Amino acid sequence: MDPDSYVVKLNGNGHKTVKDIVYPTKQKSRRQRWNIRASKMSINTLNPIRSIVDGMKLTPNPEKPMIALSIGDPTVFGNLPTDDKVLQAMKDAIDSHKYNGYAPSVGYQKSREVLANFYSCPEAPLEAEDVLLTSGCSQAIDLAITVLCNPGDNILIPCPGFSLYKTLAVSLGIQVKLYNLLPEKSWEIDLQHLESLIDDRTACLIVNNPSNPCGSVYSKEHLQDILSVASKRCLPILADEIYGDMVFPGCKYQSIASLSSDVPVLACGGLAKRWLVPGWRLGWILIHDRNQIFGKEIRQGLVKLSQRILGACTIVQGALESILNDTPQDFYQRTIRFLKSNSEICFSELSTIPGLTPVMPSGAMYLMVGIEMEHFPEFLDDVQFTEHLVTEQSVFCLPATAFEYPNYFRIVVTVPEEMMVVACGRIREFCQRHYRPRSQDSAELDQ
Amino acid sequence: MDPDSYVVKLNGNGHKTVKDIVYPTKQKSRRQRWNIRASKMSINTLNPIRSIVDGMKLTPNPEKPMIALSIGDPTVFGNLPTDDKVLQAMKDAIDSHKYNGYAPSVGYQKSREVLANFYSCPEAPLEAEDVLLTSGCSQAIDLAITVLCNPGDNILIPCPGFSLYKTLAVSLGIQVKLYNLLPEKSWEIDLQHLESLIDDRTACLIVNNPSNPCGSVYSKEHLQDILSVASKRCLPILADEIYGDMVFPGCKYQSIASLSSDVPVLACGGLAKRWLVPGWRLGWILIHDRNQIFGKEIRQGLVKLSQRILGACTIVQGALESILNDTPQDFYQRTIRFLKSNSEICFSELSTIPGLTPVMPSGAMYLMVGIEMEHFPEFLDDVQFTEHLVTEQSVFCLPATAFEYPNYFRIVVTVPEEMMVVACGRIREFCQRHYRPRSQDSAELDQ
Ligand SMILES: Cc1ncc(COP(=O)(O)O)c(C=O)c1O
Ligand SMILES: Cc1ncc(COP(=O)(O)O)c(C=O)c1O
Repeated sequence: MDPDSYVVKLNGNGHKTVKDIVYPTKQKSRRQRWNIRASKMSINTLNPIRSIVDGMKLTPNPEKPMIALSIGDPTVFGNLPTDDKVLQAMKDAIDSHKYNGYAPSVGYQKSREVLANFYSCPEAPLEAEDVLLTSGCSQAIDLAITVLCNPGDNILIPCPGFSLYKTLAVSLGIQVKLYNLLPEKSWEIDLQHLESLIDDRTACLIVNNPSNPCGSVYSKEHLQDILSVASKRCLPILADEIYGDMVFPGCKYQSIASLSSDVPVLACGGLAKRWLVPGWRLGWILIHDRNQIFGKEIRQGLVKLSQRILGACTIVQGALESILNDTPQDFYQRTIRFLKSNSEICFSELSTIPGLTPVMPSGAMYLMVGIEMEHFPEFLDDVQFTEHLVTEQSVFCLPATAFEYPNYFRIVVTVPEEMMVVACGRIREFCQRHYRPRSQDSAELDQ
Repeated sequence: MDPDSYVVKLNGNGHKTVKDIVYPTKQKSRRQRWNIRASKMSINTLNPIRSIVDGMKLTPNPEKPMIALSIGDPTVFGNLPTDDKVLQAMKDAIDSHKYNGYAPSVGYQKSREVLANFYSCPEAPLEAEDVLLTSGCSQAIDLAITVLCNPGDNILIPCPGFSLYKTLAVSLGIQVKLYNLLPEKSWEIDLQHLESLIDDRTACLIVNNPSNPCGSVYSKEHLQDILSVASKRCLPILADEIYGDMVFPGCKYQSIASLSSDVPVLACGGLAKRWLVPGWRLGWILIHDRNQIFGKEIRQGLVKLSQRILGACTIVQGALESILNDTPQDFYQRTIRFLKSNSEICFSELSTIPGLTPVMPSGAMYLMVGIEMEHFPEFLDDVQFTEHLVTEQSVFCLPATAFEYPNYFRIVVTVPEEMMVVACGRIREFCQRHYRPRSQDSAELDQ
């Protein structure tokens, strides 16, 4: 029989049945050996933290117990437990037997309503329809970038900044443009630089406030200035506010959406940091669009994207109402007081160490420290500096090259106070040992 | 000052400072009005179930309470609760205070180990390194497709089949080719048709066993035949085995990987169905690759992709050991017995209704029913048929057009028995009312 004969008949149901059909196999196909390669997208999913840290030789000094000031997980040392009410809310959700089935892909209506109420303010009112629940703030950011950008577009991201923005964007074929933050202005955005980067393919501006890795908190005025640029250039904002409300006493946090009169904002957040349960993977997107600039299209796009893998665990969703409404104020304040006090200890210790220029944070859980590399000629860069800090002093800080910001390192201020004190002492010892006066100073000394 | 002047100086840290720089703004950019459009990817994320169901006029008969035989969530009617041990495992995980922090992006080592042990068999041994935990089986499928395929590649998916495969693939720019299942052979794959579809850009073959929407369970021999094709054409398999082990007594389930000697398999599964907790969003990928055909590249690709949004809720991960090891056998058996008995009731009722051709399932939670459309000339297709079934009888079944398989509808057999009996009675009434003998029969009658 002709191998290419191809007969299709239909049975009563309109479906082909096996007896009726002869299918030709494509003889042209050259599949004769295995050749399975990872996709471009997986290869382009780059994690700078991993690639830098994995490339470092991190052998601690056996005589000193290791202190990791590198881990952005506030739960690792056990000194910052979540509140009992939060745990009880989870157990109640389990006992209710009401939260085992599928939730809508954007989250339970009730949970969205509760979040809308929690974050609503007169200047930026929210309704349940403005809220999507996601699997962590990471998925919130993923959906927000994915709905706003096409391959070939570009997005503006802070430098230094949280690495996930670039990881996600690059893997999706979206270009990133880094705008500078200014350490000497408490990490405010260099707005002129920001504006110079905007072009016709710029699809969104990511603003991370309070910031990882800087611990900075923007003033109302600065946020308004950012909004002016976005408004003038018609640029929507992705606000990563996962550290929202985690600001030190005396400093005020305002969501950028609450100051916007026209610029549409996708505000991303989650339970991870403020409620100290990063593993639970509950995040959200709050859609702020009072002028209908996003309109239905972006909302529907987000809904459609949420249907790919669905969102957060339903037990956590079910617990959300109680988590938001019953967690005592004192819990939040205790966390903040601790972060502030530990930041102050760290800042005041490090600011008296020649060669280091720490920048005092106002919120979040991080502190950035500049390294005056010209005073540490033994080390090529922040990566070598922090690598040797491990070898000699068993203290690990993340080199800020991981945030595209060389010659700084980041300290996580969630470690217990005693550890912070010991770590700072060791950093001092390390710097004193390796500090060299400027060549001109030493030249003067030589005279 | 010349607006295009552009001066960059570096300070000691190698960073630009604000005072030193004047940035030109790109005057060419034409951003003068808002124009935000949803991305192509979000627009291309199509959910056929939603688009079909949303397009239907579903107004139940006010005189009959609605019975939904359409919902693939076994928890909705309360008749199939998960086991108390499963709930207790969650509460223990919460009380341990050990599972609030970030887990590794691929899941806790211990949980991966436990899963490897649970699914290991002599023919297909597994170690912790072969397991990734994900946010539901949906994310498992997403990661598996994403790591194996590039835009422009194609994948082979079953017809009728679970709609998510196409949703994910199309949104990623991957083409889908539907291979036919054969209702008259209990939904076995038409292997000739399958093979005819393979070309040089075919990146993977998705096999869903036991099947949604068919409820079919493949014999060892059929699985071996599928593997022969995959082996001959060097095609890796994505095995969606979320209904694994959910097979009726007298029928045997085998994972396809346990029969493969060379074909590498990514087996996707999860807690959703067998443990009756779909909302908890815990899924997994089991990597079967005894001949190192996937090799390091695919494994690393999966790890990298898992870092985008991280995976499952840590409380569920922490509970996993106890969920897998302490759930009594009786729980699984009770579920299976119920599904079988309900399927038999449904099948035997519907098979005596003129114009319908139900196909008896062997597992999972579904039953497909053929509609002999020539006997229901009032209705254009399965969509109109099921629409009118709602209007007249307040019974809703999903038209199989949602699975790319017109002229069938799918019944979910998890509803309480009484409901199933009532629903079948109403379907009978509906069919009797609308059934018309074939035109030739009626011609004979006319003589
Ligand atoms: C700035 C910032 N955004 C988002 C995230 C991710 O949050 P989640 O763990 O909820 O995905 C982090 C986590 O460290 C972060 O620092
Ligand atoms: C065949 C099949 N695969 C995968 C899934 C998705 O499972 P999960 O809810 O764990 O994402 C389903 C859900 O209905 C399914 O029927």
